Amino acid sequence: MELEVEILHITAGGRRIAVLSEETASALGVHSSDRIRITHEKREAIAIANLAANFSINRIGLYEEIATSLQAKEGERIDVQLAQLPESITHVRAKIRGERLRETDIERIVKDVVERHLSEVEIAAFLTALSIHGMSMSENEAMSKAMVETGKTIDFNSKPILDKHSIGGIPGDKTSILVVPIIAAAGYIIPKTSSRAITSPAGTADRMETLCPVNLTTREIRETVRKTNGCLVWGGNLELAPADDLFIKVEYPLGIDPLLLPSIMSKKKAIGATHVAIDIPVGSGAKIKNRTEAYLLASDFVDLGKRLGLKVQCALTFGEQPLGYAIGPALEAREALSTLSGNGPPDLVDKATAIGGILLEMIGVDDGKRKAENILESKKAENKLRQIIESQGGNPEVKPEDIRVGDKIGEVRAQQAGRVLWISTENLVQIAREAGAPKEKGAGVILKMKLGDAVRKGTTLFQVYAERATKLDSALQLAERLQPYVLSRKAEERMLLDQVPAKIVREKPFMLER
Amino acid sequence: MELEVEILHITAGGRRIAVLSEETASALGVHSSDRIRITHEKREAIAIANLAANFSINRIGLYEEIATSLQAKEGERIDVQLAQLPESITHVRAKIRGERLRETDIERIVKDVVERHLSEVEIAAFLTALSIHGMSMSENEAMSKAMVETGKTIDFNSKPILDKHSIGGIPGDKTSILVVPIIAAAGYIIPKTSSRAITSPAGTADRMETLCPVNLTTREIRETVRKTNGCLVWGGNLELAPADDLFIKVEYPLGIDPLLLPSIMSKKKAIGATHVAIDIPVGSGAKIKNRTEAYLLASDFVDLGKRLGLKVQCALTFGEQPLGYAIGPALEAREALSTLSGNGPPDLVDKATAIGGILLEMIGVDDGKRKAENILESKKAENKLRQIIESQGGNPEVKPEDIRVGDKIGEVRAQQAGRVLWISTENLVQIAREAGAPKEKGAGVILKMKLGDAVRKGTTLFQVYAERATKLDSALQLAERLQPYVLSRKAEERMLLDQVPAKIVREKPFMLER
Repeated sequence: MELEVEILHITAGGRRIAVLSEETASALGVHSSDRIRITHEKREAIAIANLAANFSINRIGLYEEIATSLQAKEGERIDVQLAQLPESITHVRAKIRGERLRETDIERIVKDVVERHLSEVEIAAFLTALSIHGMSMSENEAMSKAMVETGKTIDFNSKPILDKHSIGGIPGDKTSILVVPIIAAAGYIIPKTSSRAITSPAGTADRMETLCPVNLTTREIRETVRKTNGCLVWGGNLELAPADDLFIKVEYPLGIDPLLLPSIMSKKKAIGATHVAIDIPVGSGAKIKNRTEAYLLASDFVDLGKRLGLKVQCALTFGEQPLGYAIGPALEAREALSTLSGNGPPDLVDKATAIGGILLEMIGVDDGKRKAENILESKKAENKLRQIIESQGGNPEVKPEDIRVGDKIGEVRAQQAGRVLWISTENLVQIAREAGAPKEKGAGVILKMKLGDAVRKGTTLFQVYAERATKLDSALQLAERLQPYVLSRKAEERMLLDQVPAKIVREKPFMLER
Repeated sequence: MELEVEILHITAGGRRIAVLSEETASALGVHSSDRIRITHEKREAIAIANLAANFSINRIGLYEEIATSLQAKEGERIDVQLAQLPESITHVRAKIRGERLRETDIERIVKDVVERHLSEVEIAAFLTALSIHGMSMSENEAMSKAMVETGKTIDFNSKPILDKHSIGGIPGDKTSILVVPIIAAAGYIIPKTSSRAITSPAGTADRMETLCPVNLTTREIRETVRKTNGCLVWGGNLELAPADDLFIKVEYPLGIDPLLLPSIMSKKKAIGATHVAIDIPVGSGAKIKNRTEAYLLASDFVDLGKRLGLKVQCALTFGEQPLGYAIGPALEAREALSTLSGNGPPDLVDKATAIGGILLEMIGVDDGKRKAENILESKKAENKLRQIIESQGGNPEVKPEDIRVGDKIGEVRAQQAGRVLWISTENLVQIAREAGAPKEKGAGVILKMKLGDAVRKGTTLFQVYAERATKLDSALQLAERLQPYVLSRKAEERMLLDQVPAKIVREKPFMLER
C-alpha cells in the first residue's frame, strides 16, 4: 500500500518505529507490534508499527531513525507492507516454554536486539524467561560470544591483559581505584572500564569522574594505557557490548539480572583481557547472600572464562558492611586517594591488595599479595594513579581535601550503648541516594562506626553529606525511620529481624551496575 | 525542574509517555523507563520517560494523551520531577520470583495497567512470568474481578442471562451463529459478544459482519436484545475488560495466553451472564491437545465460575478437523445460514444443538439437545437469526448466495487414492490466511473431503477462494508445500509425522482470539 510520509522530527530512543492510524493498519492487516516493510526508492527498512488513534489515514509517521535510514522526506509516497515477524521471535517463544536455545538461536536474538528488530516487549519477555528458567553454560557462552561479535573491540597489541570486576552490591566499594594502579605500577597492562551508578550511590566511573574525565574515546584509552599501563574509564560509550546496554534498559525497571555472567565476561573479552579477577561480595545485603551461592557463581565464572579463552579467578569477599568508611562519588574518591597515600582503612587495603595479589599470581608472580602491599606502601601505586589521572585529563597533584564534597552535614547517633552487631548496607544505599548521590557527587554517607565497634549512647554512628539542605533533611529523616545500625547490648530486645508486610513500604534498591 | 512544553501532536497509542533529552534526564536523575511527575497549574500527571538523543535540552515533549490530561500548551513551562516507580512493580517482581500474589496486589496491577502506569515492558514481564509459573485459582479469581471492576458492564435487568464461548483453536467454527438464535428462539436471553480474528482466518464478529453491522453501542445492544432476546456483536469497543485488551496487545507478539480463564470469564461476568457453556475443542492442532488437558481446564472453568457466581458447563468437542466445510468469514456465514435453513453439515448441526442443549438443560429444560434440534428443524432459529440481523441493521431477507465470496477459485487434488486419515487444521489456517482471510472477507477454504472420506487419485480435497489472483496463487503454492491432508491407503509410506528442524521454516500460527 502506498502511504504519504509524515516526518515526526523526533527520535524514538533508537527504536525503529513507524506510526499508522488504526484504519490504515487494519487495511494493511497490521496489528500493534507487527512489523512493516517500508520501501522507498531502493532503500528498505523494517519497522515496528505503533497504532495511533487520531493519526491521518493513508499516512505513515516516521521517527528520525527510520526516516534517516530510508532518506525519506515529508510528503513523499512510500510503499508499506505487512512483514513477517523476525525469526528470533520463534526462539524467544521457545525460551518462554523453557527450551534450551542453540548457539545460532542466541546469535539471531542478539543480532535482532542490536538491529532493533525485536521490540522491548519481546526483549522483556526473553529476559524474564531467562531469569525464571536460568541459562545453561552453553547458552551463557553463546550469549557472551554474540555480545562481543555485535560490538566493538579494543586491541592493545600486547599480552597479558589483566582486568578485575566486581559483581557489585555493597556500597563504598572503591577497590578498582587501588587495584588498577597497583597492577599498572607492577608493569602489567590493566585497561579498566567501569559503569556509572544506576541504583547504587556511586559507580567506579562516578568516583573517578571527581578526579579526571572518564568519558574517553578508544584512541584516548589506547594512548593512556600506552603511557601508564592502565586506565579507569567509563565503558558506556565504547559500544563494547551494545546488546547488553539494550538489555540493561529493560532489566532495570524489572529488577532482574539474568545476564550477569555474559554481560561481564563479554566486556572483558571485548577489551582483550587474558586474566580476570572477579570479586564476589558475600553478605545478606549483597547480591550474593551466602557462600553456597557464591561458590556456584564463582565456578560458573571460571567455566565461562575457559569457554571464552580467559583465565578467571574469583575472590569471595566479606560483604556484610560497606567497604571502608565513605559512600558517595566524591567521598569515596577522597578515601581512595588517602588510602593510596598511606592513610586508609584496613579493610579497603586488605581487599585491594588481595585482589591485586590474585591478579599478580595468575600471571606467575610469587607471593602476589605481599608484592601488592609493597607497591601500595612504597607509594608507587599512588604515583601511578596520578599518572593515569594526568593522562585522562585531570590534575595529577590533586589532594584528597581538594575533592569537593557536600557542605551540608548531619549526624546520626546511637540511641543506646552497645557494639555494632549488624549494618544494613541496603538502608545505607537508600540514605546516600536520598542525600543526592550519585547525581550530586558530593553527597553520601561517612560511617563513623563499623561492625564490632563499641559505642556509647549518643556516639555518632554515621554522617550524612549533602549539597542541598532539603536533601540532607530528607536523608536524615529516612535514616531515622530505617535505623540501619543494630547494636548488640540488648540483643534480646531486638529479636525481630523484619516484619511482613513491611512497616515501611519502600522497594529495596535493586543493584544493577556492570 | 522547570521545562518548556513541546506538544508532539501525535498520540502514543494510549501510552502516557513524555520525551526528554538525555542531558535533561540525567540532570533529573531519570533513566529510561523511570516515571516522572509533571505538574502544570493544579493538574498533575505521571508519565513514563522516553529518552531521545537529539531532543532539545530543558524541554519536555508531550504526546497528545499527556498534553490533553494536563491541558498544557506549546511553550508553557511546567514542573517535572523524578517520581517513584508504581507500587504494582513490586508485585510484578514478586511474580517473576514465582511468588503468589494477593487479591489486592492483582487489583493494583490491573488498575495500573488500565491507567497506563505500567509500561509494556513491565506488562510483558508480568505476562511471561504468569505464563511460566501459572496462576492459582485465587489469582484467577482476583484477576477476573479486577478486570470487571476496571471496565464497563451491561445490565439487561433480567435473569437468567445465557452465554456461550469457545476457547477457539479450530478453523470453521461458526457454532455461535447457530446457538444464539436457537437459545433466543427458545425464549431466553443470550447477548453474545465476539472477537475479530487476530491469528485465525475468521472470528465470529468477522463472520457476522458479512450479514450485518456488528460494531454496536451498548444502547443498540440493549435494544436488539430487548427485541430479539439475542445479539451477535463485536465486543472490542465495549470496554468490558479494558485491561484484557491491553494484555492481548502484549501477548500477541509473544505467543502466550496465560490469562485464558480470567479473560473469558471477566467478559461473561461484565455482560451479566448467569449460565455459561464453554466449548473446549480437543485435537492435535487445537489449543488443547488431549482429553487430560481438557478435563483440567474444564474443571478450572467450573471452579472459577463458582467463585464469580456464574454457573458453568464445559463441552469437550472433537477438534481434529475443521467444523463443517467452510473456512473464511463470508464462506462460513454462508454455511451457517444454509444450516439454519435446513441444509447443513451434520457435525455443525450436532455441535450447535449439543451446546444449545447444554445451555437449555442448565436452566432446567428437559431433553435440551432434542429441544434445540426441534428449534433448528422448525426454522424458528433461522427466523430468529433474521430478526437479529434486521435489528443490528442488516438485510433480514439475505440468502446464502447473496453473501459475496471470492471469485478466484483453485482446487487442491489428491495425489493418490485412499481414505482421509488426518487433516492439519494449522496448515488449513495458514492457507486460508494466505488466500486473504480474514482481511479479505470472501477469501478462505472449502473442504470437499473430511476425515474418513474415500478419495480417488485426482479427487478435489479442498478449494481455495480468494478475491485476488495473486493471493490465490500464493495460497495454492503454500498448499502444495504443506500438504494438509494425509491419506491412508499407503499409510506405511507416510510413517514420518514431522521432521526437526522443520523442512519448511514457518512459525505455527498462534491462536489468540477471545
